[in-house]
Amino acid sequence: MKQLTSADITAAADRIAGHIRLTPVLQLESGALGLHYPVTLKLEHTQVTGSFKVRGAFNNLLSRDVPDAGIVAASGGNHGAAVAYAATKLGHKSVVFVPRAIAKEEKLRRMRDFGAEVILTEGSVADCMAEYAAHAETTGALSVHPYDTAPTLAGQGTVALEMEKQTDGFDTIMVATGGGGLIGGIAAGIGDRVRVVSVETEGTNTLARSLKEGSEIDVAASGISAGSLGGPRLGELSYTIIKERVTDAIVLPDVAVFDAAKKLWEGTRLVGEPGAATALAALTSGAYKPGKDERIAVLVCGGNAEPHWFMD
Amino acid sequence: MKQLTSADITAAADRIAGHIRLTPVLQLESGALGLHYPVTLKLEHTQVTGSFKVRGAFNNLLSRDVPDAGIVAASGGNHGAAVAYAATKLGHKSVVFVPRAIAKEEKLRRMRDFGAEVILTEGSVADCMAEYAAHAETTGALSVHPYDTAPTLAGQGTVALEMEKQTDGFDTIMVATGGGGLIGGIAAGIGDRVRVVSVETEGTNTLARSLKEGSEIDVAASGISAGSLGGPRLGELSYTIIKERVTDAIVLPDVAVFDAAKKLWEGTRLVGEPGAATALAALTSGAYKPGKDERIAVLVCGGNAEPHWFMD
Repeated sequence: MKQLTSADITAAADRIAGHIRLTPVLQLESGALGLHYPVTLKLEHTQVTGSFKVRGAFNNLLSRDVPDAGIVAASGGNHGAAVAYAATKLGHKSVVFVPRAIAKEEKLRRMRDFGAEVILTEGSVADCMAEYAAHAETTGALSVHPYDTAPTLAGQGTVALEMEKQTDGFDTIMVATGGGGLIGGIAAGIGDRVRVVSVETEGTNTLARSLKEGSEIDVAASGISAGSLGGPRLGELSYTIIKERVTDAIVLPDVAVFDAAKKLWEGTRLVGEPGAATALAALTSGAYKPGKDERIAVLVCGGNAEPHWFMD
Repeated sequence: MKQLTSADITAAADRIAGHIRLTPVLQLESGALGLHYPVTLKLEHTQVTGSFKVRGAFNNLLSRDVPDAGIVAASGGNHGAAVAYAATKLGHKSVVFVPRAIAKEEKLRRMRDFGAEVILTEGSVADCMAEYAAHAETTGALSVHPYDTAPTLAGQGTVALEMEKQTDGFDTIMVATGGGGLIGGIAAGIGDRVRVVSVETEGTNTLARSLKEGSEIDVAASGISAGSLGGPRLGELSYTIIKERVTDAIVLPDVAVFDAAKKLWEGTRLVGEPGAATALAALTSGAYKPGKDERIAVLVCGGNAEPHWFMD
């Protein structure tokens, strides 16, 4: 497998510029969110479609040949919305397969609003993946993987590169890990000069387990972040990069994420979905303790929560 | 009464820098929020204490002599929180008078968290104002007016000046109007080169009525924005500036504000309180139609809503 280099990330950033939003950064003063040091937030949840996933989606569609049959993806949420949006913007058809068992009406509506044909599948997630693969094979539609191909990783990695340009730089960045596409892309892009910290919940601790046990694991996602960060194992390409460049693997209880989201709302009036609040929770829980003058960045990576989720 | 000049706003910006957050801007592409032109949002609702009010609060405290008795204010919400925060940060005591009839537990808790002594008053808002004035007289505490003194206006006006520096400039800015402190400060600061558009709801149409009937009116606030934009009349100083520099006074039904807040959430995952969404509603409702290539800015001025308010 071809290794991903920082040049790939830079090329992806040039490729997708103009198709995505330059999401803002918010510099928080020492004392904010109960932290005794300043923190810079990247507000990637204000991205089109509500998450970073659209970066990978555009990078796929703009760097690969798209057949007349269009695009196909399998997703219960952010990835499906991102692929639908990018396909429609670039004039392609898109089909998203969603397992009925995990389908949420709000997420389906968004995918459809963005122009996708949504196909609900019966049975397990594996059954859904089989139908999706069969569709790609039969129709010739271009399959876009959510987290384990070089174009997807390169696209996701652009978010940290972008943040570097918007700030005076940072020493460390907190990233929530799901399938590893985001943190893999970030590590490939800036991992040679920035400490990339993975943050997961106990119910979605795929990266932490992989660093200990190797990539051949099978995590059954559970808890507050299961919907956004749950994945049975890391992508193979992501794992290769992560093994080399990610040494900090923080695992937190759900309650720490819940608390981080509340503090984020209280202190900034921003709403982070459980996945997005997970990265911040490494700081608010005290699990990660910055050194003196260490410049800390946090990626608020997606906002596809219902606004009342953390009030329940 | 001394006229407020753009030099006063610049001086205020220098004075409060380092005490407040540089709130980010979000550039939305054409097509976002259902609009067929690009729009730049100033995310002032991510400001410390959740609104622009803290600008005026700091400018008061940093430009006036603060006695040992500290600061006193009357407010049911954002202004009280802002004064409490600024006072505590600068090492002063603060007392906030709140009419029990409009007191909301969440707002009271925030004021107390920021360090204020909160005094609930019985009777009308006028009764509250009388008690507040008496407290100032008796104790010698410095009274900070929410919207009708030069230091308050100058502080509020810094937000638009700051936004100019963060962007390539804009031709027009949409501002929600309450007592007129924000729009008055903005008009004084940049009103000579930027079109400043006032946006109000039908139940809080103080500025629109004042432009027609003069400043001596008595609006009984009602509807979705009453809590954040309601005020019986404009401040005298604000009125003087507004009469001269604000020609666009848009008035919208509550339903338009509700719709704008929903579109803001859908398209950016940002939550604007009714007051904050009002400015955006001028665009999403079609009430304001930009000319060709007109560069439009919207001030998202406060986020002190409950996250579920627009879901009800």
